Amino acid sequence: MSATSYYLDYAAATPLDKRVLDAMVPYFEDAFFNPSSPYAPAVRVRREYEAAKSKLAVTFGAKGDEIVMTAGATESINLAFAGEKRHVVVAEIEHDAVLAAARQHEYVLVAPNSKGIVTAEAIAAAITPETELVSVQLANNEIGTIQPIRDIAAVVASERSRRRDSGDNRPIYLHCDASQGFGQLDVNVGRLGVDLLTLNSGKMYGPKQVALLWAKPGVKLTPVVVGGGQERGLRSGTENVAGTVGFATAAQLAADHRKFESDRLAKMRDALQSKLEQSVDSLVVSGHPKRRLAGSLHVSIPGIDAERLVFALEARGVLLATGSACAANKGTRSHVLTAIGMSDDEADGSLRITLGRQSGEASVAEAGEIIIEEITKELRRIGRA
Amino acid sequence: MSATSYYLDYAAATPLDKRVLDAMVPYFEDAFFNPSSPYAPAVRVRREYEAAKSKLAVTFGAKGDEIVMTAGATESINLAFAGEKRHVVVAEIEHDAVLAAARQHEYVLVAPNSKGIVTAEAIAAAITPETELVSVQLANNEIGTIQPIRDIAAVVASERSRRRDSGDNRPIYLHCDASQGFGQLDVNVGRLGVDLLTLNSGKMYGPKQVALLWAKPGVKLTPVVVGGGQERGLRSGTENVAGTVGFATAAQLAADHRKFESDRLAKMRDALQSKLEQSVDSLVVSGHPKRRLAGSLHVSIPGIDAERLVFALEARGVLLATGSACAANKGTRSHVLTAIGMSDDEADGSLRITLGRQSGEASVAEAGEIIIEEITKELRRIGRA
Repeated sequence: MSATSYYLDYAAATPLDKRVLDAMVPYFEDAFFNPSSPYAPAVRVRREYEAAKSKLAVTFGAKGDEIVMTAGATESINLAFAGEKRHVVVAEIEHDAVLAAARQHEYVLVAPNSKGIVTAEAIAAAITPETELVSVQLANNEIGTIQPIRDIAAVVASERSRRRDSGDNRPIYLHCDASQGFGQLDVNVGRLGVDLLTLNSGKMYGPKQVALLWAKPGVKLTPVVVGGGQERGLRSGTENVAGTVGFATAAQLAADHRKFESDRLAKMRDALQSKLEQSVDSLVVSGHPKRRLAGSLHVSIPGIDAERLVFALEARGVLLATGSACAANKGTRSHVLTAIGMSDDEADGSLRITLGRQSGEASVAEAGEIIIEEITKELRRIGRA
Repeated sequence: MSATSYYLDYAAATPLDKRVLDAMVPYFEDAFFNPSSPYAPAVRVRREYEAAKSKLAVTFGAKGDEIVMTAGATESINLAFAGEKRHVVVAEIEHDAVLAAARQHEYVLVAPNSKGIVTAEAIAAAITPETELVSVQLANNEIGTIQPIRDIAAVVASERSRRRDSGDNRPIYLHCDASQGFGQLDVNVGRLGVDLLTLNSGKMYGPKQVALLWAKPGVKLTPVVVGGGQERGLRSGTENVAGTVGFATAAQLAADHRKFESDRLAKMRDALQSKLEQSVDSLVVSGHPKRRLAGSLHVSIPGIDAERLVFALEARGVLLATGSACAANKGTRSHVLTAIGMSDDEADGSLRITLGRQSGEASVAEAGEIIIEEITKELRRIGRA
């Protein structure tokens, strides 16, 4: 990985794990059959597909027949939001996919606090008697803050009880977009207390455009893509067997190494953060100091042009994102940074550093030195050093 | 391919071409970047993604920025049908995905003739002043008949002129699901005269759950999946770079070898058909004798239980489908066979044989002998031989 010797953008994309690719290849080649075909080799593919779904489901405490395989987290989110919903409540710092899906309904955005946490109290205040869906991410893709999903689930459960007691049968569900953080956080639908969960293979060293939506038994979904009736009619189209097998392998690896990996990432991240704080006086670290993904570090240096800095770093082999990869690409300011009350000056000078499986202590330390050198150069150039 | 030495079900699934996999692997490994990231290696991935789309588009006479990459033909079809449409006209023998998408609107089904051809006259008769979409497949996935798309396009164009002349600005578009037959037929959107075209990678030795929808410039689409705004806002979600590169390679290979391959397949198919006709007196060949995909052969033997026959053949290494793979799997009778007026007895005794890239003269001949032996055995068993 010459071009990526200092890749620090794991929140944007993760490389496919070699073991994942090895698991997929047989389904491209010999076992290429349509799982709906009647002969034995195809029936075997169908069985292996179902087994992969079960294996996948087990990694977050669910069952294979409770999940719908989709072509990406964006599609999973669209599926969670599909159908008539009188009112939806979503966090203001959700991914664009959630915000876009919410806009198809009457919706309200719940602001995070300045640390990027969306509190259960804030969600409770936004729920109306007509709210049918609440959607809060597990961890933020920009600043890495981990949301109090269990507390939010308790709020949703309490509203559900209230309705039941008052004879109101309007449903209310909690959807959690857990695209970020599966490799670092315990994701168990029972413990989280959610009704719907989105998981993204492409962010956990699995194949891209492969994801799932889990729905608790009894939760009614409306299909987005109709046709041959695959996935219990909830997502028609010939199944992506290779992708699903790859996703299951990736999820299993992530779950198996979660504890070790999150400790390892946190240690490297903390060392990098200390070094940056020591070397750059004006540096601001965003997000919650504790409730944050182990590999995530969001820093701002007011006055600096982060885009310029990203290109200077790239020239030295350090690949990372401006404060918001998505927004920057569209030439707009990150809605997440605005929501946590960051000034424009700070937002425009922010970097998102995310560590991952190939990050090593030595390379992260080296990248840190380069980042400090380039920040210092920039600060000098603009006369702030 | 020991289990598939006599694979005769290419309409259900095609194996990934080795060259396609080779083209994809770099995008799983080194070039795994998010095409929306700002640094050079990611920008290179973005460029290669766009180049793959252009290469893909060229194979059917279009431009890269006119196509929307989707996760499967079913999704492409859903995208073609999305949004408000006052009335849609579809052929009765379309794939389930088209029928399901049509049912979301007011729709009419146009019957084929007994040879499985949907005539332009029949389409013309079904179009009303409120029709906004007509959808007819390029070739049928069960009986292989090739539809007169150019003639149907002329009918749609004439209705469009009529509306324009009468000051009516309601649009009318022609969608063609060309999932089957790309490797055998000339597919050129200009020559076909269509407004929307679905192409499926998974049926042309490319990766599965990868497809595209082409739309003529000016044709308005409504997204099915919303979010980050990828694919000009028409299909949000991180792009499937590996899948798209694989699809482009597969389409290029299909287009390059089309002439040679269709001649080769037709020769083998015709030999197989003759042999079956000579050996089984009661054999009925369905579909149009000439306007039929080169690799397709649909036969019925009245009185025989095709499912039983498929299992007997499987035991001898011959893998093929009953008359309708999709319908059989659901325990229902094929809507295509019913539509062409086939009796239940004939429909229940039908086999779909489809040849493809790995089919060779010797192996097809051997498979033919086995099929004849097993049909004869079955006919003897039921006392019809």
